[in-house]
This record gives sequence, structure tokens and C-alpha cells, in this order.
Amino acid sequence: MNEGLLEVPGGITAVKGVRAAGVACGIKAGRLDLALIVSEKPATVAGVFTRNRVRAAPVILCQKLLAGRRLSAIVANSGNANACTGKAGLADAEQVGGWAAEAVRRPAREVFVCSTGVIGHRLPMEKIRRGVRQAAQNLSAEGGRNAALAIMTTDRRPKERAAAFTVDGVRLTVGGMAKGAGMICPDLATTICFLATDATVEAVHLQRALREAADHSFNRITVDGDTSTNDTILCFATGMGGGRRLTPRGAAWGRFQEALNRVALELAQLVVRDGEGATKFVEVRVKGARTPADARAVARCVANSNLVKTTLYGQDCNWGRVFAAAGRSGAALVPDRLALSVGGVPVARNGVGLGPLAEQHANERLREAEVVLELNLGMGRAGAVMWTTDLTEEYVKENAAYRS
Amino acid sequence: MNEGLLEVPGGITAVKGVRAAGVACGIKAGRLDLALIVSEKPATVAGVFTRNRVRAAPVILCQKLLAGRRLSAIVANSGNANACTGKAGLADAEQVGGWAAEAVRRPAREVFVCSTGVIGHRLPMEKIRRGVRQAAQNLSAEGGRNAALAIMTTDRRPKERAAAFTVDGVRLTVGGMAKGAGMICPDLATTICFLATDATVEAVHLQRALREAADHSFNRITVDGDTSTNDTILCFATGMGGGRRLTPRGAAWGRFQEALNRVALELAQLVVRDGEGATKFVEVRVKGARTPADARAVARCVANSNLVKTTLYGQDCNWGRVFAAAGRSGAALVPDRLALSVGGVPVARNGVGLGPLAEQHANERLREAEVVLELNLGMGRAGAVMWTTDLTEEYVKENAAYRS
Repeated sequence: MNEGLLEVPGGITAVKGVRAAGVACGIKAGRLDLALIVSEKPATVAGVFTRNRVRAAPVILCQKLLAGRRLSAIVANSGNANACTGKAGLADAEQVGGWAAEAVRRPAREVFVCSTGVIGHRLPMEKIRRGVRQAAQNLSAEGGRNAALAIMTTDRRPKERAAAFTVDGVRLTVGGMAKGAGMICPDLATTICFLATDATVEAVHLQRALREAADHSFNRITVDGDTSTNDTILCFATGMGGGRRLTPRGAAWGRFQEALNRVALELAQLVVRDGEGATKFVEVRVKGARTPADARAVARCVANSNLVKTTLYGQDCNWGRVFAAAGRSGAALVPDRLALSVGGVPVARNGVGLGPLAEQHANERLREAEVVLELNLGMGRAGAVMWTTDLTEEYVKENAAYRS
Repeated sequence: MNEGLLEVPGGITAVKGVRAAGVACGIKAGRLDLALIVSEKPATVAGVFTRNRVRAAPVILCQKLLAGRRLSAIVANSGNANACTGKAGLADAEQVGGWAAEAVRRPAREVFVCSTGVIGHRLPMEKIRRGVRQAAQNLSAEGGRNAALAIMTTDRRPKERAAAFTVDGVRLTVGGMAKGAGMICPDLATTICFLATDATVEAVHLQRALREAADHSFNRITVDGDTSTNDTILCFATGMGGGRRLTPRGAAWGRFQEALNRVALELAQLVVRDGEGATKFVEVRVKGARTPADARAVARCVANSNLVKTTLYGQDCNWGRVFAAAGRSGAALVPDRLALSVGGVPVARNGVGLGPLAEQHANERLREAEVVLELNLGMGRAGAVMWTTDLTEEYVKENAAYRS
């Protein structure tokens, strides 16, 4: 982090005016599965959502509520996505929001609802009704962790981050939580992430800031190339931190945007690090593309290639698979100009390999848990970065048995 | 097969005027790795190739030779793709063609060269030189099988098919061979396939027939969504079967096209059945799309989805993953109209599931080795079919250890 930005412990409840709770309401046997997050005062709100045309009921509801620009609470469950549940599912989502509104004494139009888990099953409404009531009683300024635990599905670890910055001597905070760990692919909001800040920001500006943060974080990660029906990022500003209103024209805006970007990026990277079955965190850097769109297309093809991902898992520098993935991306490229380095070790240049010794050095780097693949197309000046995982037998095992 | 079409045993050497051989030249320890296929008389030739921008040296050479419209021989090795080998690799491919031309006493411009295997290594030229000479001595009308064995990489079984049809009392044959078994994705020729016929067909018409056959076969299969650098289909017509010249306007053309389509389709399906690590052969049928392009986009997204493929492996009817894959395809669709059946058992209609009993029945079908997923979008009349496999731990294991 740079000087102006301070990492702080905790997540969403590190933000002034935010209380949260996570409870076990019985959707997932014996595990936290319902989160409630409340803003002490009605907050301004922004959101980005999945671009999948099959949207879960809570996504449809949140998109509708977003027009009101105000958020008082978020209620979120794991274990059931409330997706592909038709009109009844939408009514269920509205009912859950209604119960939460009642429990926290706020208007239902300010209560956002999220779900994540298995597709195609109706929500167990009675369990959720009781869970919402219990969560409302447990709300606290230390509840962020439990809330982060309650939105996990196949995640191995909860994902929380917070950062602080200063404007005119007033310390402001951005905090958030996210969940992974499969059905993750960019070009959309991706996964579920809640962000909050105690800065004072109008909804329209908050939306712009969130879009930028998402484009540089959740839209640049992939685990398996599958886009979820439930992807949602909500960001709300409580204004409880004091100080003046931040606007994109003001000098302090850059610090706010930086804090938001940082928290979103770290949460997104945590999602990749915790990717289903992943043993490696892989950064795919593309340089020398003719256009930014070309750079992104190449980065995406490489990051999603099953053959690249299995060779990373095998700790074998089979660089030809990276070239082959780049070649099918549709981007303008000339094979004779391609260059690749693995963990900083050049393995191919001018389209051809640099020999077994180079590969041997690269294989040593591939034993590490974090790997950078840097591919230079030699066509121009545009670049792109994506983060991905390897593809392992554990991923297959986990997803073959997901519902059993 | 319909009445006019007769399945016949064997593969490419079932075609009159075709001799072949497969030898072990030492690229792959102790296994057949070099194939030579010769047409008794110079044949007309057609070809379709990978659309990957990173093309292997032999692909570049074949595309150049195709302009001459004549084929006398094909020399093909496995174990080394001669891809990402630069100008030196292209010179190697030309040299291999030159040796084969010498050995079979034909002009080098009529000798096509193919390679498949690991990317990024130079060919072991001395071994290939000796292998070509040996193969030329072993050529026979029964050599198709050995040639089919010699082009295998991770294939478990050789892939050969032939079919016969009759024109004016003259029996004509189409025969061929193909190899899989990974880096397979449509929207290109896909993999390596050699087809031959003893019918008399001009090159320009043969090209048109091959394009149609490929579009209905190799362009509709996927194993892992990765497009190879070496994909090549060559088709040649020896004219040795007798009878008149076939043209697209003639009445017999339909029978020839049908035979070619059939052999190509069966070879393509053999590639899927032998897909790396595959335990299932899966037909993805999309109906009710607004446009054929929409239908293909949905079929492709479903057939390539790791989450769909792992759920098939797990024999668990997690139909929401099929809907989610369709939703991210970009095709026009309304979730409330989606319907899915699995192995003939309806599991979802109007966008929602038909309950646990339906899923239980579908799960029984999922235990079978062949599964049909039929997805109806309810938007129009267009349809598409694709063939794919499940995704297994064995696929990961095989590809993590591919070069070791």
C-alpha cells in the first residue's frame, strides 16, 4: 500500500455505522449460513451484477431496489442460490427481505437480498424466517467475521479486508467481504461481495467508483470460466465517518477510489487463492498487445485454458500450451514475435523455445505457490493482467460431488 | 446408415488406390509413431485447418501445398507437433516431405506433411529420415490400421471408419482415420484426420464437400475447449474406383456427400468417445433457439462448461449448471422458457425444476455411458447438436503429467 493508504484489520464492520451478524439457520447442517448486515443510518448504494441471462431471483430483486439508491440492510444466505426458481423464487426473495426489514425496523425497499449455493431449489423459508430474527438480535460491530463465514459455500476460508485513508484530518474506512470459490469468471461482477465505506458519497458517484473497482478486481479473476447466475457486488456508503462529501472532482476522490480498488482487489485475489482445489495462485500478464481488448482476450484465454492450468498443476513448463491458448483468442498476433517468461525465467522468445535448461529453471519456479506468466505479443503497447488458479483433481472431485 | 450407404470394415486403405504403413521410428519409445499414406495415382485434394493463429510448421506447409490441388502422399508423425519451432521447424517439415517424396518417387509438391504431439521441440530428423524410408518399404493395402496407430498421441484406441455407396452399379468407397484425444474444440478443423475416396472428384468440389462434412462432424465436438495448433483434415480422391466424375449438380453427389459426412462424423465421435479421461459420451442438443448461431453458442457453452462436465462425471443431475452455462452464452433467451431433459427424462420446465423425483430418475440415466442433454430455449425453431465428454480426475492427471 502507498503512504496515503492504511491497511486495517477486519472487514465490513471496520466501517463506522455498520453492524453485522452470521447465524446457523439450518440450510447447511451445523454451519453458519445466514448473514445480516445493517447500516446504522440509511446509506447510499451501488451495485454490479452478473451478466448471465439466467439471473437468480435475488439478483433481479437487488437490481430493482438499486433504483431507490438507498440501503439499510443486506440479508444473505448460503447453501441455496434461489436461482431457476421462477416467480415463486422471486416472491421468496421479497419475503426474506420483508422479514429482515421488519426485524431491523427499516423499509423493505432498503433491504437487499442475496443468495448463493445450489441452483434450482426453493429456499427453506421457515428456517430463514427464524434465522433472520436471530441474526437481528446478534448484530454487532464485531459481527463482520461471522457474516463473512455465513456467506461461504465451497470456500475454505472467510474473506475480509479493510483499508483506511485520511481526508482533511478525518480518517475514513473502506471494508468488505467476499465469497468464492467456483463458477468464477470475469466479464461480470463475479461472486458475492459486500463493500462499505463511512465516507459520504452520493449513489451516482458511488456507482462509478464501484464500476471502476470491479473492473480492476473481480472482472480480472477466473477459477473455472463459468459465470454464476448470482454474482453480485453491493457497495454502500454510511456517511458516518464525518468530513465533507466526496465527489469525483474533489482532491480526496483519488484516495477514496484507491482504497476501494485496493479492498476489492484484495478480496478478488483471496477468491482466487481459495479457488476450488487450487494449489497455485497464478498471475497472467500480457504485454505488447495491439489493443487493450486484444490484451484482455489473450489473458482470458490463457487464464481459462484447461491445458495451461493442468500443466501448471503438473509443475511442468509446457509453454506451447500458453502459445496455443493465445493463438485461439482472436487477438492479432504473429507467432514469431511471442515471448514468454515463467516466474521471471524466459522460456521462449521470437516464437520458439529457449531450450531444456531454461525449462528446467522455469520448472523450479513452478514449484512455488505463486507463479507469474508473462507473455509478450510484440505487437504494440497494450497490456492486461488476470489472476487464475491451476486445475487439479481436487477441483474435479469437489465439483463432481458438490451436491452429495 | 440408410439403404444407399454401406458400412465397410477398415479405414483409409479400404479405398481403392490407397496404400499405407505405420512404423516405429523412435520418437516415442517402442511405439508406432510415423505414418505414410500413398495414393497410387496423383489424387485431387482438399483440406481444412486450425483457426488458431499459432499454426504448426506442417500446417503452414500443407496450406501452401493445397494450392497445387494434387496429393500423392501424406507423411505424419506423432510424439512431436513441430509447432512453435519457427523457420527452422518449417524447413524441417519441408525436409520430411522431401524425404517422403524421394522414397515414393513423387514430386515433393504433392507430399503433405503432418505432425502431432508436444509443442515447442524440433523434430528428431535422423529418426524420421530412417522411418520414412522404412515406411515406404512397408506400404500395403492393409496398412491403414498401422498408420492409424502411428498418429495416436494420448488416444487409447486407433480410429478408423469406411463406408461404401453405389453410382450406376459402380461401388465407391470413403475411408479415413483420425486421432484425438485432447486439445479438442470446434470452430476449426480439429485434430488430425485423413479421408480418402476412390470416387472421381475435382479438387474444388472436394473442398466444398469436405467443408460440409467437417462442419457437421469435427466442428461439433469438444473435449476440453482448447484449440490445437496442428488441427488438419486432409481429404483426397484417387479416382481409382471407376465410374464417372462426380459433381455437385449430378444425382450421385448426395450419396458421396452422405458417405463422406458419415465417415467424418463417426471418426469425430470416436475422438470424443476416446477423449482424455472421459467416462461418458455426451450429446448436447439445443432446440428452440431464435437463430442457428444462438443454438450453436448455447450448445458450445454447455458442452465446454467445466461445471456441467464435472456434474456429469459425478452422475448428479445438477441441471442448474446447464441453465447457467446457457445463460452466459450470449444467445437470446428468457430463463422462464428454458426446459431440459436428461437422458429423455424431463428435469426442468418453464425455467424451474420438476422436483427431486424427476432428478432421481435422471440420475439413473446419468449412470449410463452415453447421455443426451436436450435443452429447449423456447425462443424459435433453430437447433444445434454437439458432442462432448465429462471432465474427470483422470483428465487432470493425464494433462498434468503429459510430458513426464
